Amino acid sequence: MKTLDLQPLTAAAFAPYGDVIETAGHEAQDMNRGMAMRWPDLARINTDADGQVTIGRVRSRRYPQPWDLTRVERHPLGSQAFIPLETTPFVVVVAEAGDPPKPGALHGFVTDGAQGVHYRRGVWHAPLLTPFAAMDFIVVDRIGPGENCEEYRLPQGETLRICV
Amino acid sequence: MKTLDLQPLTAAAFAPYGDVIETAGHEAQDMNRGMAMRWPDLARINTDADGQVTIGRVRSRRYPQPWDLTRVERHPLGSQAFIPLETTPFVVVVAEAGDPPKPGALHGFVTDGAQGVHYRRGVWHAPLLTPFAAMDFIVVDRIGPGENCEEYRLPQGETLRICV
Repeated sequence: MKTLDLQPLTAAAFAPYGDVIETAGHEAQDMNRGMAMRWPDLARINTDADGQVTIGRVRSRRYPQPWDLTRVERHPLGSQAFIPLETTPFVVVVAEAGDPPKPGALHGFVTDGAQGVHYRRGVWHAPLLTPFAAMDFIVVDRIGPGENCEEYRLPQGETLRICV
Repeated sequence: MKTLDLQPLTAAAFAPYGDVIETAGHEAQDMNRGMAMRWPDLARINTDADGQVTIGRVRSRRYPQPWDLTRVERHPLGSQAFIPLETTPFVVVVAEAGDPPKPGALHGFVTDGAQGVHYRRGVWHAPLLTPFAAMDFIVVDRIGPGENCEEYRLPQGETLRICV
């Protein structure tokens, strides 16, 4: 079974898939007369005209290691952001929007413990993989009518082993 | 100078102003085949047709105590959510949307250390008040053309003392 290479998550490497939600590389603005600073516009949530943007919360169990990835999914009607509430890294596995990912199209990243991610609309992605600890996330995504989750089961023999 | 009464933040007490972003009182759904649970749809972000929804980050200094509140603001074109990244309470001061708040119209709440808040469009609110510690927040709100921040300076003699 192939083991997926994992690389550190950076905005440049993640650009084909969406945004890294982080303050690094973004300029802060003054707010509330010096009592606060703000990094605005780190990720713009995108939905179809029938959708609305909603905030939810996700609690992920710790994933056993190694983890064999057999399925990915995508959301054709809206983008989706996950922001961790703990300072613990997690693993992001993605492939570009379009046809279901061919062998080699899935790429793996490890966050730095502060980063969140924003998947562009239609980007294939694994479930949130949290190999270091159980973790809570804020999720910002689309809600509305229509079927907004498509799953793709990797063909037999293409299962990807994730090992941190 | 009048000191503002502060009450514990609850969804019921905050209903005229928006949503409390919390898992309490919301049912969790299974996600990722038992590896995660999700509380969906805790707050829906609302914008005018020209706006988009964006995610940012805010870092607030610790506010000295007592704090004398002289100004409130509102965002006529979109709602606005703040979700704390630390488990520290903070203070929320709001008045219902409409004309600038008359004496007695502003109400103060203290969060329980896990709650976030979502201000309905046009709701008058103080800056984020963080009297216990410097705090980081995720902010989800509207970005786009047009003037989306109106400030109201409390008339002399109506300054409100905030004291936790």
